[in-house]
Amino acid sequence: MARAEILAIGTELLLGQIMNTNAQFLSQELADLGIDCLWHTTVGDNKDRIKDALRFALDRTEIVITTGGLGPTADDLTIECIAEFFQQPLYFDETISRYIQQIFAKRGLPMPPSNDKQAKRPEGSDILPNPVGTAPGIIWKLDARLLQQAGIKNPEQERVILTFPGVPSEMEIMWEQTGRPYLEQNYSGGVIWSCDLKHYGIGESALAEQVGDLLDMSNPTVAPLAGRGECRLRVTAKASTVEEAQKMAQPVIDDIKSRSGTLLYGTDKDTLEAVVGRMLSEQGLTIAFAESCTGGLASKRLTDIAGSSKYVKLNLVTYSNEAKSEVLGVHDFILNNKGAVSPECAHAMATGARRLASADIGVGITGIAGPDGGTPEKPVGLVYLALVTEDFQTDKKLQFSPELSRAEIRERTASEALNLVRLFLLKQRVKAAPGSESWNFG
Amino acid sequence: MARAEILAIGTELLLGQIMNTNAQFLSQELADLGIDCLWHTTVGDNKDRIKDALRFALDRTEIVITTGGLGPTADDLTIECIAEFFQQPLYFDETISRYIQQIFAKRGLPMPPSNDKQAKRPEGSDILPNPVGTAPGIIWKLDARLLQQAGIKNPEQERVILTFPGVPSEMEIMWEQTGRPYLEQNYSGGVIWSCDLKHYGIGESALAEQVGDLLDMSNPTVAPLAGRGECRLRVTAKASTVEEAQKMAQPVIDDIKSRSGTLLYGTDKDTLEAVVGRMLSEQGLTIAFAESCTGGLASKRLTDIAGSSKYVKLNLVTYSNEAKSEVLGVHDFILNNKGAVSPECAHAMATGARRLASADIGVGITGIAGPDGGTPEKPVGLVYLALVTEDFQTDKKLQFSPELSRAEIRERTASEALNLVRLFLLKQRVKAAPGSESWNFG
Repeated sequence: MARAEILAIGTELLLGQIMNTNAQFLSQELADLGIDCLWHTTVGDNKDRIKDALRFALDRTEIVITTGGLGPTADDLTIECIAEFFQQPLYFDETISRYIQQIFAKRGLPMPPSNDKQAKRPEGSDILPNPVGTAPGIIWKLDARLLQQAGIKNPEQERVILTFPGVPSEMEIMWEQTGRPYLEQNYSGGVIWSCDLKHYGIGESALAEQVGDLLDMSNPTVAPLAGRGECRLRVTAKASTVEEAQKMAQPVIDDIKSRSGTLLYGTDKDTLEAVVGRMLSEQGLTIAFAESCTGGLASKRLTDIAGSSKYVKLNLVTYSNEAKSEVLGVHDFILNNKGAVSPECAHAMATGARRLASADIGVGITGIAGPDGGTPEKPVGLVYLALVTEDFQTDKKLQFSPELSRAEIRERTASEALNLVRLFLLKQRVKAAPGSESWNFG
Repeated sequence: MARAEILAIGTELLLGQIMNTNAQFLSQELADLGIDCLWHTTVGDNKDRIKDALRFALDRTEIVITTGGLGPTADDLTIECIAEFFQQPLYFDETISRYIQQIFAKRGLPMPPSNDKQAKRPEGSDILPNPVGTAPGIIWKLDARLLQQAGIKNPEQERVILTFPGVPSEMEIMWEQTGRPYLEQNYSGGVIWSCDLKHYGIGESALAEQVGDLLDMSNPTVAPLAGRGECRLRVTAKASTVEEAQKMAQPVIDDIKSRSGTLLYGTDKDTLEAVVGRMLSEQGLTIAFAESCTGGLASKRLTDIAGSSKYVKLNLVTYSNEAKSEVLGVHDFILNNKGAVSPECAHAMATGARRLASADIGVGITGIAGPDGGTPEKPVGLVYLALVTEDFQTDKKLQFSPELSRAEIRERTASEALNLVRLFLLKQRVKAAPGSESWNFG
């Protein structure tokens, strides 16, 4: 199995001014390729330390991937240091230079002379093209002679250095187009394919228990991952081709699907809002939200999805009692006797939103997001949800831990509301024809 | 200036399953303390490589801060490796053991025998207490004898190792309570104090130009930082006390404030929504948003602020023409002749929201967030904003690059709308008494 090191170059990382997100992205990609990433190193814009870091990395791995230090300014030192390390001259590459000039011409700007620097690369290296910026990288295969001359351990083992810019969007497109295919062809130890099975409404430990017998397998593997109130099970298979890996993983995925039932809402990049949107489109239904404590977050998430105007016509954020009463038609009796945070109010909000929007489904959300506004009877974190259609209604009471922040309570409440809609739509789909039925899955 | 290395230990980091957020947090803190963080290293749960990493770190820095590998399971190796590296025995610390037992007792659980492991530490080290979990760390001052025996370079220079768990919440509280005070007392090279001056409505290069003569100073320094459509100028001063550093920075901050005028909206953790909320509260005004393309995002950001119910009563997300017309009262003439994406529609939406909410200020947002729905006359990224009060109205046309994603167009539109409100409220504050005036700052 080929070994790799990711070397990030940039003083701003060591000052904590930016997060090294590139290391995580590249690590996931290397794992996918079956390449063993053994080290991450970060070093500042300092020639001696960059060269030290190159030596450590080349001594212990075959593939060194650098990020950062490819810009036009004086503190961008990556290419210069690599060339000096191997005592190879930098030459001016006309092709790169013309390409950089074209970029500036397109932007209608003159090219500053400092950008000439970006057209230089060490003799013997190849260009790693940058389709979106002025900083191309290099791919440099290093043979025994160069390695020996630089004093690298085990010089008979070939090494390769790939350089990327630090800007994540540029790095990622260069990786996709050139870096990944290059490593896949030359170093990949087969294929690691994985699928995330995304769950909602179950905690990490309960989910792990439910699939306890699957957690000890070695290929495919099943691993529980948690975050943002959601849980995933990642099924990973190693094989020589993607098809083979998928074939190995499929029975395990099917097994988990049958165990999880409606707790499983999607895979990989699916989100609750995307899944709900897809189901609404398929079933030709429209929806309207009336939000209080989430303040527009549920509406925002619903409309994050391109094409959501098919099923969203109107949502309302009724923060005050007056707005609930005057705009949504929540009776003063409810507001005065049950309070704005009550199942009755959630129902009336859902009904009002549905009527105003002429929608098939109305959803009401009301609760106390904190940090203030809680009482002993109605503490911070208490939320009521309601879902109303022409012939059906349901509600759900939530009580979040008061230790959660306002932002977390709002985020999880929006997720719970979207999940309430998802479960309703699933039930709809199961029923051959819609009837009149009241049920509760709280 | 003391030098430090942050050594993260955990295979999950090298697989990209989690992000190394600890490195950024600790880097910022070290910079604050005036300690030079020169390296970040990440290594997996492997004894040989952990010991290699310790050697590299101790050879080149005086302060080594580790994160991760303090748990009770077999792959938690940090303490064991450090003890083996210096050939010191691990002894069982009764105090730590009792503390861990108490934690389990509080949780009403029996202590698994594996947790005994967490009570062991090398002779000569001190406890770095963990007030929230079962994984305490150590602070170990290493003298010339131990360093020489382990073959570390320059053994006459004292070293210190501090170990923290990988869970960020535990690491951070241990840092605040013990790690930071310890380093501050023993290693701090004075204080580095900084202040971010947050700007809206100006690009990074224009902002840098505006303060060009300040960018070459050495103490305090001024550095431009960009992100999410906003720009910051960070003013950083080094001195022996915070007061002294602030005193040095103040004239530069004042200078920038006078140059930037209304482009400067706040400092440090201020957000546009927090600043707008503060001004609305101060002026005793209420506001209502009618959103189309932002789909609730502006409302969500406005209500992210605790206490926003003082100035937000009702916001509306009118996604369809019917909702704009029936709920907000936008005339069919406007929708049919000018279109939903027009300054006229934005005005009518703002007016409708203001009337429905009985608010002092109404804001309308309408545009095309994409990726579909654009035409040659009205391309993706075209947005109109309007702000209406009893005696005043203004609007603003935005045209975002079509290369921006739907999410970015929505985010920046919400920011522009909040900034429109901010500029209006600033002008209000300047006027001694509100009059009737129409102006445009597009």
